[in-house]
Amino acid sequence: MTVQIGKIKIGGPEFTVIAGPCSIESENQFRTTSQSVKNAGASLLRGGIWKMRTSPTAFQGLGESSFEFIKKVKAEIGLSLVSEVTDIRQVEEISSFVDAFQVGARNMHNYSLLKDLGKQEKPILLKRNFSAYIDEWLKAAEYITQGGNKNVILCERGIRTFEKATRNTLDLNAVVYAKKHSQFPVIVDPSHAVGIADLVSPLCYAAAAAGADGIIVEVHPNPAEAKSDGDQALTLENFDTMMVQLKKVLHAFDRTLTTA
Amino acid sequence: MTVQIGKIKIGGPEFTVIAGPCSIESENQFRTTSQSVKNAGASLLRGGIWKMRTSPTAFQGLGESSFEFIKKVKAEIGLSLVSEVTDIRQVEEISSFVDAFQVGARNMHNYSLLKDLGKQEKPILLKRNFSAYIDEWLKAAEYITQGGNKNVILCERGIRTFEKATRNTLDLNAVVYAKKHSQFPVIVDPSHAVGIADLVSPLCYAAAAAGADGIIVEVHPNPAEAKSDGDQALTLENFDTMMVQLKKVLHAFDRTLTTA
Amino acid sequence: MTVQIGKIKIGGPEFTVIAGPCSIESENQFRTTSQSVKNAGASLLRGGIWKMRTSPTAFQGLGESSFEFIKKVKAEIGLSLVSEVTDIRQVEEISSFVDAFQVGARNMHNYSLLKDLGKQEKPILLKRNFSAYIDEWLKAAEYITQGGNKNVILCERGIRTFEKATRNTLDLNAVVYAKKHSQFPVIVDPSHAVGIADLVSPLCYAAAAAGADGIIVEVHPNPAEAKSDGDQALTLENFDTMMVQLKKVLHAFDRTLTTA
Amino acid sequence: MTVQIGKIKIGGPEFTVIAGPCSIESENQFRTTSQSVKNAGASLLRGGIWKMRTSPTAFQGLGESSFEFIKKVKAEIGLSLVSEVTDIRQVEEISSFVDAFQVGARNMHNYSLLKDLGKQEKPILLKRNFSAYIDEWLKAAEYITQGGNKNVILCERGIRTFEKATRNTLDLNAVVYAKKHSQFPVIVDPSHAVGIADLVSPLCYAAAAAGADGIIVEVHPNPAEAKSDGDQALTLENFDTMMVQLKKVLHAFDRTLTTA
Repeated sequence: MTVQIGKIKIGGPEFTVIAGPCSIESENQFRTTSQSVKNAGASLLRGGIWKMRTSPTAFQGLGESSFEFIKKVKAEIGLSLVSEVTDIRQVEEISSFVDAFQVGARNMHNYSLLKDLGKQEKPILLKRNFSAYIDEWLKAAEYITQGGNKNVILCERGIRTFEKATRNTLDLNAVVYAKKHSQFPVIVDPSHAVGIADLVSPLCYAAAAAGADGIIVEVHPNPAEAKSDGDQALTLENFDTMMVQLKKVLHAFDRTLTTA
Repeated sequence: MTVQIGKIKIGGPEFTVIAGPCSIESENQFRTTSQSVKNAGASLLRGGIWKMRTSPTAFQGLGESSFEFIKKVKAEIGLSLVSEVTDIRQVEEISSFVDAFQVGARNMHNYSLLKDLGKQEKPILLKRNFSAYIDEWLKAAEYITQGGNKNVILCERGIRTFEKATRNTLDLNAVVYAKKHSQFPVIVDPSHAVGIADLVSPLCYAAAAAGADGIIVEVHPNPAEAKSDGDQALTLENFDTMMVQLKKVLHAFDRTLTTA
Repeated sequence: MTVQIGKIKIGGPEFTVIAGPCSIESENQFRTTSQSVKNAGASLLRGGIWKMRTSPTAFQGLGESSFEFIKKVKAEIGLSLVSEVTDIRQVEEISSFVDAFQVGARNMHNYSLLKDLGKQEKPILLKRNFSAYIDEWLKAAEYITQGGNKNVILCERGIRTFEKATRNTLDLNAVVYAKKHSQFPVIVDPSHAVGIADLVSPLCYAAAAAGADGIIVEVHPNPAEAKSDGDQALTLENFDTMMVQLKKVLHAFDRTLTTA
Repeated sequence: MTVQIGKIKIGGPEFTVIAGPCSIESENQFRTTSQSVKNAGASLLRGGIWKMRTSPTAFQGLGESSFEFIKKVKAEIGLSLVSEVTDIRQVEEISSFVDAFQVGARNMHNYSLLKDLGKQEKPILLKRNFSAYIDEWLKAAEYITQGGNKNVILCERGIRTFEKATRNTLDLNAVVYAKKHSQFPVIVDPSHAVGIADLVSPLCYAAAAAGADGIIVEVHPNPAEAKSDGDQALTLENFDTMMVQLKKVLHAFDRTLTTA
């Protein structure tokens, strides 16, 4: 099955690249990043409005103060936007300009939220919790679909293991397994899965080669000054280079990028 | 510091036993279990009203239909009740008869819920997520306390590891570590941590010997017929026997049970 | 750096496919498999002579009884052979017909064996233990090289995590990390890493796309009758199909297969 | 069943404390530690002669240069000694003064070594590998016993999990499980399992309360100057204090210490 975000169909023969900053930090940062990733071939934008942070005193996102400029930038760029919600009360606030709601890894087991999102019409990008069994991830999707919303996209973003050298462990086994055992599109978030910018691009290629339906990648014009997750963000130039090689990998499978 | 649930102070020199069924399944099951665990020395009751289940089609708890008989049984037995909430909308519904709200392992990273509970006055029993770093668990408590509610009790309930022979892996390291590095009372849930009824009692003793402030234990009059987690429930007789030995272990540390 | 097994250089611009049965079970099975994988593009053979099994009563390999026919088949096929040793006493026995010694995951931390192999001249294929930190894996290689044998090839073969749906979790993060932080060639064993034959091929492509120097794949003419690990073995036909697609992936990176 | 090391029976009604330094570093360090732990109630000594270290350039133990003073100190103190071997060639060298051979966690899957030790008469202390399934640990014991040596003692020493705050995760579930499902004595190594000296004592009590047959504890007269694992070593005074409380815990189960 395919799931449509704005004009983009995910889960068909084409491969979808969703890109943008971890957090939307300013109008300028969001515009620069969005324009650049679009030029390189991304067909959907990502960007955090409210951030889930381990510490309650860490940067929690711009929230409401960003709504107006997000709408403006989106209109200029012409791409749809995926953004995380952690509470159903946020959905109303942002539904006029957010085209798909992301459930973050930390909320995959928040069945109350999943049930609420099952009553929405917009697509849900359901990240796998960092310690969810594949089976739990697939069943979490059912918590959404049984409410009536069939538009679920699964996203593998790395699991917690004993290894400390990388932030998480990208589990491509799970991607291949989910592609075989579920009907939903499956995409990969290599940025969170490895947490080290230098290692992200090869994992994008690996995700495509393993048969994923797309990737979601963090990009920042100046990662050193990012307010969250700067260590794993590609620069605009890194992203351009990655996209050139990614297209070659897709070509090896007779695939192309979805286009806006 | 100590946290008080009803008349029971947790985190002081005494040791608290919270016991009861996984799910409250009927008036009779709840009464029989509650009376029996009280007689054996438990000073607080546990019991699920809404259950978090991996599959959306599994038994999800009695919900509202149980409210009246829960109040009745509580009044008869005279013990306070701890029960899980997964959504702030549930808090209002049950706050007239539930004395402490449990955040389950699946919702420990649900910061939206934690913030909501930070505005409540009743104590919060915060279970450690099955893959939460100890540091995340302690910081999750801060999400609650920064809202004004300082009454947090931490609960270790087993983590996910490679081991398959037991349901989870009880992490007593984390209990000892949290007792040393945080101010909150720390209790242990051996039932979920091992998932095999025959192995629960020795782990209750181990929790006490490691210096925990209490345990929360699943008990069922007929585990074979339990609607959830029957494999890990102690029978009433198992629980009685466990409590006799537990008191001896506490005595070795000059401790006694809290009494209602 | 490159490491040479027989005439095959691993770690240069070309990509090396090592293939063959988990266990060498009979002259016929070994010949059929070897001829077939060679025809499809494999340039090195694999095959267990002594097997490491969890249970001491499981099939432990043909051992000495296979030596003569292995030599004969090798001579016919014309490819070099990689086989596991678990004890330095085995090295002498098989060094006349085995061209590289594999250290299995279970022996990666067996520093006594590593030191012994450091005095050998033949290359060592060092599998990562299923719970070894990447750093331990790289340091294990130093246990070999400090003895004088610089010919070490690293092999990622899946790690143990909480996930139960797959045998292990393939850790491509570790492959990308090791390629960046060590000088040794790094190959991937997708067969053990996922343990389910249907899922092996996409992971072969992913390994190539991530930049590995090669793969080592289990192939069996009749997996259902394999004496060990039949669940993860590709059939001869599966392997042929995989190799056709693999070459396309390599082409996307301007790479080709090493040829014997 | 019980297993006897020197005059000490492990696995009967009494509880055995094995204590001593991680590495035997000097005659003086070994004598001081041994005399002190004996006075406090330990009935067996531990001490590394050759050390397994992640890095080949780290301190690898005194080896042969310590043999004479070890014999001398043992004769003075009058306790038997447990020490690790990593290679069957070491067994001959030390069998005149070592009373039980330890297989370290890193060698639990080294079936070649286990088979060799199966032909020895002295007891084997088999540590669980940090990622071994309980079932593999029990089957590893069979690799020893099928060679004729029935004198196996199992030792849980912590497993590798996602948690980083502690060195490993002590798995008391596994201890309780192994006590129920195997015939071998089961002891606990809290020093390696947690890796932080301040947290070791409560875990000693927990091990006793969970029903273990004994503990093996690292003690050093001056942990800050230890050549290996100083972070987890109890001081002589810490050990004395721990033993006083441990006896009270054992008393709660009508148990006492084995005595030399």
